Amino acid sequence: MKFVVNSVKNGGCRLGVMSEFGLHGKKTVETPMCMLYTRRGSAPHLTADMLKKIQWLPPMAQMSLTNMIEHHEALEAYKEGIGKFANMKDYLVYNALHDPATEVMAGQNDTATVGVWTKSGKVKMDVDMFVRIQEAFKPDVYQALSDGDTDLKATKKRINKSVTRTLTYLDQLLERLPKSEILKDAAIFGVIEGGNSVFERCRSARETASRDVAGFVIEGFHTQGPQTEFFKLSDVRDTLRQTVECLPDDKPRLMHAAFPPDQVLEALELGLDIFDSSYAYHVTERGCALVFDFTHKADPEDMADKKTVQKGWEIDLNDKRYFEDFGPLLEGCYCYTCKNFSRSYVNHLRNTSELLGSVLLMIHNFQHYFHYFEAIRRALVEDKYEQLKTHILRQKLCNSS
Amino acid sequence: MKFVVNSVKNGGCRLGVMSEFGLHGKKTVETPMCMLYTRRGSAPHLTADMLKKIQWLPPMAQMSLTNMIEHHEALEAYKEGIGKFANMKDYLVYNALHDPATEVMAGQNDTATVGVWTKSGKVKMDVDMFVRIQEAFKPDVYQALSDGDTDLKATKKRINKSVTRTLTYLDQLLERLPKSEILKDAAIFGVIEGGNSVFERCRSARETASRDVAGFVIEGFHTQGPQTEFFKLSDVRDTLRQTVECLPDDKPRLMHAAFPPDQVLEALELGLDIFDSSYAYHVTERGCALVFDFTHKADPEDMADKKTVQKGWEIDLNDKRYFEDFGPLLEGCYCYTCKNFSRSYVNHLRNTSELLGSVLLMIHNFQHYFHYFEAIRRALVEDKYEQLKTHILRQKLCNSS
Repeated sequence: MKFVVNSVKNGGCRLGVMSEFGLHGKKTVETPMCMLYTRRGSAPHLTADMLKKIQWLPPMAQMSLTNMIEHHEALEAYKEGIGKFANMKDYLVYNALHDPATEVMAGQNDTATVGVWTKSGKVKMDVDMFVRIQEAFKPDVYQALSDGDTDLKATKKRINKSVTRTLTYLDQLLERLPKSEILKDAAIFGVIEGGNSVFERCRSARETASRDVAGFVIEGFHTQGPQTEFFKLSDVRDTLRQTVECLPDDKPRLMHAAFPPDQVLEALELGLDIFDSSYAYHVTERGCALVFDFTHKADPEDMADKKTVQKGWEIDLNDKRYFEDFGPLLEGCYCYTCKNFSRSYVNHLRNTSELLGSVLLMIHNFQHYFHYFEAIRRALVEDKYEQLKTHILRQKLCNSS
Repeated sequence: MKFVVNSVKNGGCRLGVMSEFGLHGKKTVETPMCMLYTRRGSAPHLTADMLKKIQWLPPMAQMSLTNMIEHHEALEAYKEGIGKFANMKDYLVYNALHDPATEVMAGQNDTATVGVWTKSGKVKMDVDMFVRIQEAFKPDVYQALSDGDTDLKATKKRINKSVTRTLTYLDQLLERLPKSEILKDAAIFGVIEGGNSVFERCRSARETASRDVAGFVIEGFHTQGPQTEFFKLSDVRDTLRQTVECLPDDKPRLMHAAFPPDQVLEALELGLDIFDSSYAYHVTERGCALVFDFTHKADPEDMADKKTVQKGWEIDLNDKRYFEDFGPLLEGCYCYTCKNFSRSYVNHLRNTSELLGSVLLMIHNFQHYFHYFEAIRRALVEDKYEQLKTHILRQKLCNSS
């Protein structure tokens, strides 16, 4: 895999291009990029055909190894990889270790293995097993095995152990990989740990960067799951900035979290390139629709004058107020759901717990979130990022008032 | 609405055509026909676009009034009917009173009202309210208000009351309807009650037939819901035959139940014309796929010789045996699911409770069940019904062995 940063703008935001993938050689990916979030290999609630209705879809899907661990023998026997197995073969596959939408249980790892809970009990995954499962998945890009179940409250001792173990796994992996014919073209991302310790973060970053990896996953600030929506990058800004400074410029940086629109911008300014769309999934699961506005005008004054500023990132379709609201989820949105259904109908589906409500919301929320990333890329290219940011932050102020 | 029986074959099976619908004047419907089962206005788990992937879809969707009762004020305010509200405007809409897939709670009705349970408590629906809700729905065909929560164990007194009340509701309705401009083109189906009493059934049938109704719903043999899969028409064959004999030939007869393939044939021979597809829904909800075979050959001897006869109506995708089975749900099926996914993948989705499993199974099961009705119509036209029946019943024998 190749990565080129074409320009750095607005105090750190990188415009880049990933290319030369092993299995999908001709594909290119522009960054900043938000991957398609999947569970068990598929976009939540959506068949591949429903997915095609969504505009601005990214070319890369994020899968999770521990999500599929109970089925990996079948995948092994299948021999053609997760993409084809899940009818997602047109996507570049990035395989994360854990599902970003599910909290990782702490304390399951040891020096040689990462513990994963399945229906049939705990599986202790060592490097050999990890490689075997990746061979069954056949990803284009994958996250190295890591010991990342730390958060900002983790002790120094735990953080130190997390960095050391993760480096040990990585060394074992890099020793093991030359024996794997199947994974030779897949790009491996090293994992940066270190909790909130600048010292450990920099150790992790420098050591990982000195190994033969194609990119970096920054984890260990939180233990994944829905609560990452409340994770504030401003709390770790200095640590993260110093960590990123230890990383080479020519490799992409990925962070898993459910980032609301303002956090996405903060992350970009800190030099991150790749994200997942678990945020859109969480919003969907609680019955909400993303409605924040990113149609930034050329003149910021224009926007300041705008009489009705959108308040908050989302609306709650469980709310009685939409009972007789026959407008679309978001005025002006041209997603499949907004073109065909009303707030009233989605409210009805939510009130009666009909699963179709999730299908319709997932379509809208994915399209809106992916469109937002497209708008960010365009704003960076056209030097209108500051206007977009001002506009987004004004909606946040309304949100918290 | 107009109904013509073109021929009666194989001891009672009717080949007919419905036409001249109020809202969808140009549509015609061939019977025997199985309506598309919906919940809250939509096919379970499927958007209208996923529905389009299904072949052999019927032109008529079955909706349920009590399913939507909590939302009827919104529908009233919407003014354009349930078809457009639920993005199902291309379908003829038949509006049942109760959801056939949910058991009806007994003892909620009285002389003037039918009791319906909602989130906010019990709603007592009288004829006025019923008409108002139907006006909001704007169906092409609808079931009259009825007191049908009886089963084969109902007492004579309860059965008598059920017949009398249902006739009273009907008379009130027929008096009220001329005042409704909206419902003047919608066809009303009278409801035949009477439990297992030949006397009450015949009274109900004759009295209802003497009123101005466009067709008949036969209920009161069971209280709807999943357990109707175990309802055996052979237990009520004589009662039902005598009931049907009291009905005019030129009006269609509808019965709600989850009919497995053999029961469908029994129902046809007893002179029923219209069904719902809640059976395909129940099969889906338990994680199974319909695999019974209806590819009947010209020569019954051929089939008797067939070495491997399919055993049973369905396979259980929760079963470990499909863990590494990379074949389609059903060999030779060309539904969207079978063309794109394997038993192994659906097994994985089921094991991890991923909702997409239901989406994929619903697509297959609907297509298979609707295709079966198409095969029945063709068999009747081509005088190959007996071969089809023999073939189906042989699979049942295998099933119960």
